[in-house]
Amino acid sequence: MEYVMVDGRTLDRSAAKVDIEDRGYQFGDGVYEVIRVYNGKMFTGMEHLKRLKESAEKIQMKLPYSPEELLARMEELILKNEVDTGTVYMQFTRGISPRNHVFPGENVATTFVAYTRKVPRPVEPMEKGVCAILDEDIRWLRCDIKSLNLLGNLLSKQRAAEANCFEAILHRGETVTEGSHSNISIVKDGVIITHQADNHILNGITRQKMLEICRNESIPFEERAFSLDELSSADEVFSSGTTVEVMPVVEVAGKPVGNGRPGSVTRQLQALFKAEIERQCGQI
Amino acid sequence: MEYVMVDGRTLDRSAAKVDIEDRGYQFGDGVYEVIRVYNGKMFTGMEHLKRLKESAEKIQMKLPYSPEELLARMEELILKNEVDTGTVYMQFTRGISPRNHVFPGENVATTFVAYTRKVPRPVEPMEKGVCAILDEDIRWLRCDIKSLNLLGNLLSKQRAAEANCFEAILHRGETVTEGSHSNISIVKDGVIITHQADNHILNGITRQKMLEICRNESIPFEERAFSLDELSSADEVFSSGTTVEVMPVVEVAGKPVGNGRPGSVTRQLQALFKAEIERQCGQI
Repeated sequence: MEYVMVDGRTLDRSAAKVDIEDRGYQFGDGVYEVIRVYNGKMFTGMEHLKRLKESAEKIQMKLPYSPEELLARMEELILKNEVDTGTVYMQFTRGISPRNHVFPGENVATTFVAYTRKVPRPVEPMEKGVCAILDEDIRWLRCDIKSLNLLGNLLSKQRAAEANCFEAILHRGETVTEGSHSNISIVKDGVIITHQADNHILNGITRQKMLEICRNESIPFEERAFSLDELSSADEVFSSGTTVEVMPVVEVAGKPVGNGRPGSVTRQLQALFKAEIERQCGQI
Repeated sequence: MEYVMVDGRTLDRSAAKVDIEDRGYQFGDGVYEVIRVYNGKMFTGMEHLKRLKESAEKIQMKLPYSPEELLARMEELILKNEVDTGTVYMQFTRGISPRNHVFPGENVATTFVAYTRKVPRPVEPMEKGVCAILDEDIRWLRCDIKSLNLLGNLLSKQRAAEANCFEAILHRGETVTEGSHSNISIVKDGVIITHQADNHILNGITRQKMLEICRNESIPFEERAFSLDELSSADEVFSSGTTVEVMPVVEVAGKPVGNGRPGSVTRQLQALFKAEIERQCGQI
C-alpha cells in the first residue's frame, strides 16, 4: 500500500485524483518542491519549505500551512510509506474554479498533493561522472519561481536523454544559466563559478548549501554569469541538485571536460556535501 | 446535467477527475484549444483542430484522434450539452506516468479532456471598447505553441484585471508582441499592423481569419513587430481572439487611443468578421 496526501488527507495512491478544472491541470498554476530523504529523515527540509512559501508568494498564492506544519505532515508520510532513501514531492495549485486566466477569489482553496518515492543515491554516476548536451534556454524570465510550468525544462531534458546524457546545460545566447533540472557550476584555476541567483535560475537548495560549505571551508567561488567559452575551457564542470547532490560532468557536447574524469574540487565538494548530509541525517 | 469528455468517454461533469501524476498536472505538459460556438455550430473548428495537432507535434506528442474525428466528437458534446452560443475547450496531455522530466514511451496514452461552456458574445464591450495595461512579456520563447504552461499569461491578465482592464498588452523591451490572451493590432494611417507569426506570439485563428478578410477586401496590413512608441501614437488599437472576436482597445496604460472611441477600421473589421461568422454559422 502506498499513501499520498491530497488536501491534508492521507489516501491510498490509487484514489488520488484531482478535478479537471484544477488550475494546476489547465494552466500549470502552482508551485512545487522535492525534498531528499536519507535514513527516513528529510535533508534541508525547512529550506525547501521556505522556498515553497516564497515561490507561492511570487505568484500571489497563499499556502494554507506553515513550513513547520508541512514538515510535520511530510514526516508522517515518510513514516507511513517506510521511506529510507528517497524523495518527498509536494505541490500546491491555485485550486479548482471555472477556467479563467484571472485568479479566483480567496474563497477558492489551494489544492495540495504530496507523495513519496524510494530513490537510491546515484552512486555510480557520482563516481564516474556524466555527460551533458548544450541547449538554448527558451524558458520564461521567472526561473527563480519553482512553478509547474516546466515544458521548456522537459523539452531540454528529453533532448539530453535522446543523446544518452544526464543533463542539458542551458544558455541564453552566449551566457550559461543552469541545467534543465539542476544548477551548473564550473571550476577554473581552483575557483568555483556559478550563475548568480537572479530571475534566470532557480536558486537550488543544494547550490546554497554548497556555497555555505565553500564559505566555511574557504574554497574560493564567484557567483556570476559565465560564458559558453568559459564552460568549454573549464577545468571541471558539475551539476548540483536535490536528488543528484554534486554530480561531476565529464563531457559537454561530446567533448571531454579537463582530462575527462571527475576533478579534484568536485570530489572535495562531494565529500563535504556527504559529510553535511550525515551530520543532519546520519551515516549514508 | 452537464457532460464532459475524458479520454473519449462522455461523463457527468462531477465524475471528471484525472490522476495526480498526469503530466498535465505536474508539468503543464500538454496542449489545448478553445473553439467558439454560434447557433450550436463551431466557427473555424477545423482550423483550431489543425493547430492543436501542430502544437502537439511541436512538443513531440501524438494525438490519438484526427482533426476530423475530434470535430465529430465535439459536435456530439455541443449537442448533448445544448450549447447555442458558447465555447468548446479541449486539452491533451502526455498522459499518466511516474514523475520524470523525460517523456514516457509511446505505450503511455495521452489524456484527453473536453467540455463546453455557454458564453454570450461580449456585445457591449465590443461596442464601447475596452482598456488595456502594458506589461513586460516574460513568457518563454515558444509562444507559437498553445501549451498548458500559462503562468506568465495568468500573471499579466491578473494585473490587467486588478486595474479593471480587459487585457495586458505585452512587450519584450520596446517591441510589442501580443496580449495575455489575445493578439494585438494597431492601425496607423489606415494600415493594420500586427506582429508577424513567429515564436513570440500565438498565431491566433481569429488573427488569421482577419488577415484573410483584409486580403479579400483589399484592406492594407503589415505583419511586423511594432514598438511601444508606435502603439502609443496609433490611430486605433484592437485585440482579437476566439471568444472576443475583434475587440476595440480605446485606452492603453491610462491614455486614450485616438479620440478614445472605437475607430473606423476596427468597426469595419468587426462587421466583416461578423459576416464571416454568419456565413459559417447562421445569423447571430
